[in-house]
Amino acid sequence: MKALQYRTVGAEPEVVEIDTPEPGPGQVRLKITAAGVCHSDDFVMNMPAEGFPYPLPLTLGHEGAGTVDAVGDGVDEIAVGTNVVVYGPWGCGQCLQCAQGLENYCPRAAELGIFPPGLGAPGAIAEYMIVDSPRHLVPIGDLDPVATVPLTDAGLTPYHAITLSLPKLVAGSTAAVIGAGGLGHVAIELLRHLTPARVIALDVTEEKLEFARSVGAHEAVLSDADAVDAVRKITGSRGVQAVFDFVGYQPTIDTAMGIVGTAGDVMIVGLGDGQATAKIGFFAQPFEVAARAPYWGSRSELIELIDLAHEGVLDIAVETFSLDEAPEAYRRLGANTLTGRAVIVP
Amino acid sequence: MKALQYRTVGAEPEVVEIDTPEPGPGQVRLKITAAGVCHSDDFVMNMPAEGFPYPLPLTLGHEGAGTVDAVGDGVDEIAVGTNVVVYGPWGCGQCLQCAQGLENYCPRAAELGIFPPGLGAPGAIAEYMIVDSPRHLVPIGDLDPVATVPLTDAGLTPYHAITLSLPKLVAGSTAAVIGAGGLGHVAIELLRHLTPARVIALDVTEEKLEFARSVGAHEAVLSDADAVDAVRKITGSRGVQAVFDFVGYQPTIDTAMGIVGTAGDVMIVGLGDGQATAKIGFFAQPFEVAARAPYWGSRSELIELIDLAHEGVLDIAVETFSLDEAPEAYRRLGANTLTGRAVIVP
Amino acid sequence: MKALQYRTVGAEPEVVEIDTPEPGPGQVRLKITAAGVCHSDDFVMNMPAEGFPYPLPLTLGHEGAGTVDAVGDGVDEIAVGTNVVVYGPWGCGQCLQCAQGLENYCPRAAELGIFPPGLGAPGAIAEYMIVDSPRHLVPIGDLDPVATVPLTDAGLTPYHAITLSLPKLVAGSTAAVIGAGGLGHVAIELLRHLTPARVIALDVTEEKLEFARSVGAHEAVLSDADAVDAVRKITGSRGVQAVFDFVGYQPTIDTAMGIVGTAGDVMIVGLGDGQATAKIGFFAQPFEVAARAPYWGSRSELIELIDLAHEGVLDIAVETFSLDEAPEAYRRLGANTLTGRAVIVP
Amino acid sequence: MKALQYRTVGAEPEVVEIDTPEPGPGQVRLKITAAGVCHSDDFVMNMPAEGFPYPLPLTLGHEGAGTVDAVGDGVDEIAVGTNVVVYGPWGCGQCLQCAQGLENYCPRAAELGIFPPGLGAPGAIAEYMIVDSPRHLVPIGDLDPVATVPLTDAGLTPYHAITLSLPKLVAGSTAAVIGAGGLGHVAIELLRHLTPARVIALDVTEEKLEFARSVGAHEAVLSDADAVDAVRKITGSRGVQAVFDFVGYQPTIDTAMGIVGTAGDVMIVGLGDGQATAKIGFFAQPFEVAARAPYWGSRSELIELIDLAHEGVLDIAVETFSLDEAPEAYRRLGANTLTGRAVIVP
Repeated sequence: MKALQYRTVGAEPEVVEIDTPEPGPGQVRLKITAAGVCHSDDFVMNMPAEGFPYPLPLTLGHEGAGTVDAVGDGVDEIAVGTNVVVYGPWGCGQCLQCAQGLENYCPRAAELGIFPPGLGAPGAIAEYMIVDSPRHLVPIGDLDPVATVPLTDAGLTPYHAITLSLPKLVAGSTAAVIGAGGLGHVAIELLRHLTPARVIALDVTEEKLEFARSVGAHEAVLSDADAVDAVRKITGSRGVQAVFDFVGYQPTIDTAMGIVGTAGDVMIVGLGDGQATAKIGFFAQPFEVAARAPYWGSRSELIELIDLAHEGVLDIAVETFSLDEAPEAYRRLGANTLTGRAVIVP
Repeated sequence: MKALQYRTVGAEPEVVEIDTPEPGPGQVRLKITAAGVCHSDDFVMNMPAEGFPYPLPLTLGHEGAGTVDAVGDGVDEIAVGTNVVVYGPWGCGQCLQCAQGLENYCPRAAELGIFPPGLGAPGAIAEYMIVDSPRHLVPIGDLDPVATVPLTDAGLTPYHAITLSLPKLVAGSTAAVIGAGGLGHVAIELLRHLTPARVIALDVTEEKLEFARSVGAHEAVLSDADAVDAVRKITGSRGVQAVFDFVGYQPTIDTAMGIVGTAGDVMIVGLGDGQATAKIGFFAQPFEVAARAPYWGSRSELIELIDLAHEGVLDIAVETFSLDEAPEAYRRLGANTLTGRAVIVP
Repeated sequence: MKALQYRTVGAEPEVVEIDTPEPGPGQVRLKITAAGVCHSDDFVMNMPAEGFPYPLPLTLGHEGAGTVDAVGDGVDEIAVGTNVVVYGPWGCGQCLQCAQGLENYCPRAAELGIFPPGLGAPGAIAEYMIVDSPRHLVPIGDLDPVATVPLTDAGLTPYHAITLSLPKLVAGSTAAVIGAGGLGHVAIELLRHLTPARVIALDVTEEKLEFARSVGAHEAVLSDADAVDAVRKITGSRGVQAVFDFVGYQPTIDTAMGIVGTAGDVMIVGLGDGQATAKIGFFAQPFEVAARAPYWGSRSELIELIDLAHEGVLDIAVETFSLDEAPEAYRRLGANTLTGRAVIVP
Repeated sequence: MKALQYRTVGAEPEVVEIDTPEPGPGQVRLKITAAGVCHSDDFVMNMPAEGFPYPLPLTLGHEGAGTVDAVGDGVDEIAVGTNVVVYGPWGCGQCLQCAQGLENYCPRAAELGIFPPGLGAPGAIAEYMIVDSPRHLVPIGDLDPVATVPLTDAGLTPYHAITLSLPKLVAGSTAAVIGAGGLGHVAIELLRHLTPARVIALDVTEEKLEFARSVGAHEAVLSDADAVDAVRKITGSRGVQAVFDFVGYQPTIDTAMGIVGTAGDVMIVGLGDGQATAKIGFFAQPFEVAARAPYWGSRSELIELIDLAHEGVLDIAVETFSLDEAPEAYRRLGANTLTGRAVIVP
C-alpha cells in the first residue's frame, strides 16, 4: 500500500510503497477514507536528530477516518464495514486516567511504548491503518469523512479546552480565541454552540478576521501590539473569562495574559516554538487567573463532538489533497497558506 | 472445579462440580481468592420463575478477587500472577457512558447480552472465573483479598453515591446513613474520610447503632417512628444535606425525605422490596431536594477506592466462609444475622 | 397612589388608592415602570381563608421594574434615577445561603417575617414600591422594562433550573420543556443560548407547539397520552437528559418521568395543583434520575440573565395592561388565554 | 480609644489614642476582643512612600473579632451583644461577584474607594472598630475569639484555595503544603478534614517539619534543593495533585512546579516578594497543570469555616499580645520567630 512517511530527519516526508498490515488479536484494520494534516507533525519534523522521540520511518497522520476492513481475533465490538474516526491519544486503557477516557493523560503510555498513530505508531496518511483496540474508534454513520476527520484533533483539542472553561462561560461572559486557523475556527464555532459567551477572535490579517466573523465570532480584533487595549475596550474592566491561544508564541501568550479578567482561564493550546510561557504570580495578573496548557481530549469528548456533527451545526473548513499530493499539503501548512484544515484523501 | 450455582428457581444455591473454563481471545482467567455475598443475589433468587432475567444454572458472585491465572490471545495489559479485584458492572466499552468508565450505566449492555458476573454471566463464587476484558480488573498488590473484595460492590456503591453528593457535603454539613450493614458501615467510614460532614447513622437495634459509632458515626439514632424528630433535633431547621438509604423500604425512604434539608440529596441505594419510592413535588419536601436511585459505580471510582484501601484507612467488617459453606452464608444473610459482609474463600 | 390589592379571600384583586410609601434607612423607593402577572399569584388567591399565609390587604406583583425615586438613610449603593428590576425572593442577607446570593433558599426568612414583594410584602403592581435593600436591585440601563420585567421570575426560574442541569446538557444531549407558556417559552430560548442540547417542547395545542417552534424548539410534540412514545421515538433509548416541567400536574410529571433517560434530571418547576409528585425508587425509573422541585433563583443568576438580555438574544412574549386593567389580566391568566407574559404598565 | 497605626512610611507602627468612632446608618461598631497580625501588613509597611496605596495614618488589622457594641440606623440584622468575626475583603455588595459572596473579587471596590479594614479602612487592632455592613459579620457564639480570629484570613485564605482544588483531591491523591506557618498549618488541618488526600508538608527547619506533622501532615520534607526529588520519591510519577505555596518566593514556586503532576493545581498563596512567578507553557510542566494566585475567600466560605470551628476539629496555634505589645508582635513576625499566628488582645 501507499503511505506518507517521514524517513530522514530534516528531509520532507515521502510517499512510499509498504506492506499492507494485518490486524493482530484485539486489533482493527481501517481502509482510510480521510486523514488530517497538523502543525504538530511539522513541529516533530523540525526536531533535531539527536533525541528524536520516535523510530523512523514514521507513517504520518494522527487524524484518521476510515471503514473497518478487517478485525483481529476477539474483536466483536465493531463490525467490518463500519465508518469510523480514530481517537488518537492512545493510553494503557487500565489506569485511573484511562478508566475515565482521559487516555491523553495516561501516565504509563510512554513507558509501555504506546504512542498515538502518526506520532510514534504508524499513522493514517496511508491506504490502510491498524488501530490497536476498538475502543479507539467512534462510528460516524453517514457523516462525510473529509469534513469529519479534523474533529479528531482540530475539533477535539478545542472541545476539551472549552469544556474545562464552561463553568466560567456563563451568560454575560466573554471568550477570546487567538488564531483563527485549523483549530481556532472550530473553537469559535464550538463556543457559539456550547456557551452563551460573546466571542472575540484575534488574528494577524483582515482576511483571517473576516473568516473568523464568518464562522461566528461576534468581534474580530487584529492581533498586534494594540490588541490588549482593543479587547479591553470591548470587555471593560471585567476582561475576558476564558482565552484560548491556538498560536502559543510569546506575543500571543502575552496578549492572553493581558486581556484575561479576575478568576479567568488562559488555555495555551498552540505549540508555538514550544518555549513560550505565561507567568503566574501574586501581582503578575488578575487574581485567580488559571493558566494551563491542555493536550488533546478524552474519548467521551470525541463521542460528544461526533454527536454534535450529526446535528449539522459544525462547518469545518478543509482543503483536500490526494495521497500523492500529501507532501505539498505539508509545504502549504509550513507556508501558512491554508484556509482551515488540509485533509488527505487516499 | 467447584462453583456455587443457583440452578432451580425457588431452591437454595448449590455447590457443584463444573468444567474449569478457558479464556478466549481478550479474556482473563482468575484463580479466585475471595468472593462476596450480597443482598442483591438474595433479591434475584426471590424472583419468580416467570420472567426470571438470567439463564440457569447461574454461578453466583458479583464481588470477586483473584490472581490472574491465564490470559487469552491479545492480552498484554495484565500479567499472570497479578492480584486483582473485578469491576462488576460490565458494559460495551464503546459508548458515551463506557468511555467515561460509567459502565454501570451502559445503555447497550442488555441488548448485547452483556451481564455482570454473578448476575447473568458466571460469577466469582467458584474456584476459577473468566473476566471478559483486562479493563475490568484492578490490581490490589499486597492488600488482603478477603478484606478488599467487598470494596467492589459494598464499597463502590456507597463511594459512587457519596461522590455525587460531595458538593453538598461542605464544612458544617450533615450526612445521614440509614442502615449500618454491609454497605452502610463502609459508607460511614467513607464519609468520615472523604468529607468534613457530621455523620448520623440510623438503624433498628442498639447493637447496630453501637457498631455504627465504632466505625465513625458522630451520632447514632434508632430508626423508628421518632427518627425524623430525633435527627431534626440534632440538625435544627437546616436538616441533612445528603441522606444515603441502604435499606430502601418505604419507612426508611420516608425517614430520608423527612430529615433532608433544602437543596439536599436523597440517595436510595438499598433495593428493599424494589417497590418503595420517594415523592418529589412542589410542596412535598423542602425545595430543590434531589432524590435519585444510583446503581453501583464507575471504573475510576473503584481504582480510587483501592488507592484508599492502600492507605489503610478502611476497616471492612467481614465473616468468612469456605466454598462448601457458601449456602450457609446466604442463609445467614437472609436471616439478617451477619455483621458486615460475608466473604467466600475457596 | 394606585395599587392592585388582594383584599378578601376568594374575591378578585382590586385597584385601590393607598398612601405612597416612604423609604426607611437602608431602603429604596421605585417608581414602577412595569410589573409582571404570574400563575403563582393565582395559586395564592385560590388558597382557603383558613391558613392563608399572608396578611391582607396584599399589594400584588413579585415581578417589578422601576426607576429609583428616593433612597433612605445610608443608601449609597444606587443612585436616584437608575433603571432597575427587583430580585424577588428576599432573604435575611446574613446566612450561608444568602451569603451565596441564594436568598430563595434562606432558611430564616419566614421566621424573621421576611417575604417577597407581592407574596407577603407590598408588591410591584402599584405606582410606587419599597425595596428593602439595594442588594435586591439589578440595574438594566436602557433595556425596555416591559420586555425585561418577566426575567425576574419567568426568566430567573427557568434560568436557575437550567443552570442546575448544565453538566448534563452536553453536545448530543436532549432537553425537554413541558408547557410553552410564560416560563416555558423563556426556557426554550435559554436552552438554545446556554447549551448545545436538542430541545423538544411539549404542549396541548398545535398553536402552542407552533409558538414553541417559533422561539427555538427543534421539535414540538403534543402533550397527551402518546407523548412518551413520541419523545422516545425522537431520542431513542437514550431518553432525555433534562426535563423541565412548567405545568406540574400529575399527567405532565408522569410524562417527564417517562421520557427521562439514565442519570437524567427532572425539574418540577410548575406549581400545578401543588399535589402532584414524581416517584423515585430502585425500579421506578432509569437509574440515577434526579428529580427535584427548585424554586426561583439566585441574585447572581438574575445579574447574568440581565447581561444576556443586553445582548439582545432574548425575545420575551408579553401582553401589556394598564394598572386599571390589571384585574382583567388576572382573568385572562386564569382562562389560559394569554400568549407569553402579562405585564402591567402603571 | 487606643489603636495601632501605621503613620509614617518606613517607620514602625505606633500605639496611639484616637477618637472612638460612631456607627453611621447601616454600620456596626464592634468592641474588639481579638485581632490578628499578618505578613501582608508587613508587606504593605515595606512599600515605598511613592505610590503607597492607602491614606495615612492607617489603623492596622484585617483579622478582627469582637462584640457588637452599637448599631447605626436601619440595622436590624444583628443584635448588640453578639460575638462575631469580621469578613475582611469588603466589596460593593451589588455586582456579579459580590452577589455570590465573592467580595474578594469585587471589580468595583477600588474605584468606589472601598478597602478592607486594616488595608485602607480603619482596622481591628484597636479597642473599637466600625464595620460597614452587618453582612460582613459572622456570629461565632461561644467560640474563643483569640483562637477563632485567625480563621478570617489565615483560615479563610487556605480554605478558599483548597475548595478550588477539591475536585482534584479524590481518594488516592496527594496534596502538598509549602510553608507550615500561620496559614500553612491551618491548611494542613483543613486538608485532613476536608479531603482524603495524603498531605506532604515542606518547610526549612526540622522544627517546622515536626510542627507540620503534629498538626496532621502525613509526610514532612525539607524545602531545599532536593525537595522535588524527595517528594517525587513519595508520589512516584503521578506527582502531587494540588500544591499550596504559602511562601511565594521563586524557590518555593519552582518546587511547586517541580512536584505537581499532570492536570494538577498550583496555588500561589504566599506573597513572597510579590515578584515570583510560575511559568506555564506547552513543554514547561506536565500537561494541564493549572497555576493561579487566589486571594482571600468568600463570605459563605467564612461561614462554613466557623461551622467547622464549632465542631472543635481545628487547633489554631496562636501567640497573644496586648495592644501595647502590638509593635513587638510585628517585630517578631518580621524576624520569623512566631509559631502560628500572633493575636492582639486589647
